[in-house]
Amino acid sequence: MTTGTPQRVLLTGAGTGIAALASISLALAGHTVFASMREPKGRNQDKAQALREAAEGASGSLTVVELDVLSEESARAAVEAVESSAGGLDVVVHNAAHLMVGVTEAFSPEEVLRAFDVNAVGALRVNRAVLPVMRRQESGLLLWVGSGTTRAIPPFLGPYTAAKAAFDAFADSTAWDVAAYGIETTILMPGVFTHGTAHFANAAFPKETARTEAYGKIAPFLESIGRDTERLMVNGVSADPQIVADEIVRVVDLPAGTRPRRTVADGSDYGAEIVNGAAEELRLRLARRMGVTALLDRI
Amino acid sequence: MTTGTPQRVLLTGAGTGIAALASISLALAGHTVFASMREPKGRNQDKAQALREAAEGASGSLTVVELDVLSEESARAAVEAVESSAGGLDVVVHNAAHLMVGVTEAFSPEEVLRAFDVNAVGALRVNRAVLPVMRRQESGLLLWVGSGTTRAIPPFLGPYTAAKAAFDAFADSTAWDVAAYGIETTILMPGVFTHGTAHFANAAFPKETARTEAYGKIAPFLESIGRDTERLMVNGVSADPQIVADEIVRVVDLPAGTRPRRTVADGSDYGAEIVNGAAEELRLRLARRMGVTALLDRI
Repeated sequence: MTTGTPQRVLLTGAGTGIAALASISLALAGHTVFASMREPKGRNQDKAQALREAAEGASGSLTVVELDVLSEESARAAVEAVESSAGGLDVVVHNAAHLMVGVTEAFSPEEVLRAFDVNAVGALRVNRAVLPVMRRQESGLLLWVGSGTTRAIPPFLGPYTAAKAAFDAFADSTAWDVAAYGIETTILMPGVFTHGTAHFANAAFPKETARTEAYGKIAPFLESIGRDTERLMVNGVSADPQIVADEIVRVVDLPAGTRPRRTVADGSDYGAEIVNGAAEELRLRLARRMGVTALLDRI
Repeated sequence: MTTGTPQRVLLTGAGTGIAALASISLALAGHTVFASMREPKGRNQDKAQALREAAEGASGSLTVVELDVLSEESARAAVEAVESSAGGLDVVVHNAAHLMVGVTEAFSPEEVLRAFDVNAVGALRVNRAVLPVMRRQESGLLLWVGSGTTRAIPPFLGPYTAAKAAFDAFADSTAWDVAAYGIETTILMPGVFTHGTAHFANAAFPKETARTEAYGKIAPFLESIGRDTERLMVNGVSADPQIVADEIVRVVDLPAGTRPRRTVADGSDYGAEIVNGAAEELRLRLARRMGVTALLDRI
């Protein structure tokens, strides 16, 4: 059970992975959960049903909502459904993401633009539906599920890590705008998870193969990237994505006004924290030097 | 005069600003410069002519080339023109960029996607034309003109800073792929420049105005953002963008294999260096832990 006030939470990309786990954990903790995905009555009906069943008997509730982050109309309809059901919205968890693996040169501009659209612009579409509600309420939490990889870009994840870096920057730029309206920002940076989510199983590769074939010198590294990534696991134990879901529950449970600006949930010891510390100091210094500390959530 | 071997250098976005200054400085230093821009025989013919005149009598040369980073065909034609004129290409300076100013929620998904296309995907289109040449040569330098703002996102530059963060991530992901082919990477991070470039004069604002008007509480900060940014200038002296052009010349002049991975040219003391230091250590640690140090330019 939540120790604080039950929160009305909308999660994107809840069909699989971190947001699926978090939707269930949040409902069990007593929150009013709206788990969104594409086509919950169509091709994802089994995923929707699995979520509902996992939350049966929970002290909170779990409702599956249709939301495609590539459509502003879909985002608007989802937020309207949440509002009419729950009378408002306290938290949005931006989680929808799609992994792409390959040599950067091999991705076509169209493939790269699509990665950016799903992984970064999608969150802005949802915000354009959510923020008018939160601004009216003068309260809310934007919880952005970013990635520790944006602090040290690994090989062969070009369009994905670039889009996640943009996503992270959008979180920071939006935070300046909304803090005056009582809307908090938490950027949660998971470490590397190679099991327990559909992230790697559903990864996309560049369609055009000739460019990849031209990189013969590095072909062995492209072939071994899965095993090389596995080496990051501490003591050979693959990190469990439930730790990210647990961190989402912890942040949502915190009283408004006390949520951390950034947090890390990392079983791989990726090490984003060392960069986060320096970056946070620079952000506060920037606010002081520009004379805009009034735009910070808190100093 | 250059102290090393004259380099064949292609610059994007050379009609104005940093790349215009760098094109002239590189020609004066003895290099073979291809300054590219859109429509050098059309609406930008005055800019093209001004560049040629400024480089008259230089020990190197300056040729204006047509290149629109939004077109793969245009990028390919430009690189073919450089190759047939100079027999190869040693350096590409990715500089083309377009500033956007406003409340993040107010930018439409289409405006954001366009910012990303110009400021980030544009460099990938140029790379898809340039890298096959450099891989064949087994030498080259990718010089990415990023932004110090990606290390601490300032207010009201959402789509621009997100796109520059993606651009920076593309630089890092491409570097893993190309180092085995003798191709170096330098990411140059300028600080804040409010004068001496067309960056702010040509800035775009969100077309839809109702969303901006809904942010009444922060309107005074949006109105004063120019003056607040000016406060970053050390001792009230606005930084001169020529220092960025000078840094480009310095990096191009360095012997192959000795160029810095990242460098800062900052008259505003923005402070990106503190984050760069931590991030560089994390990048090297990642390579060691994954067992992929063979993909680094150097350790």
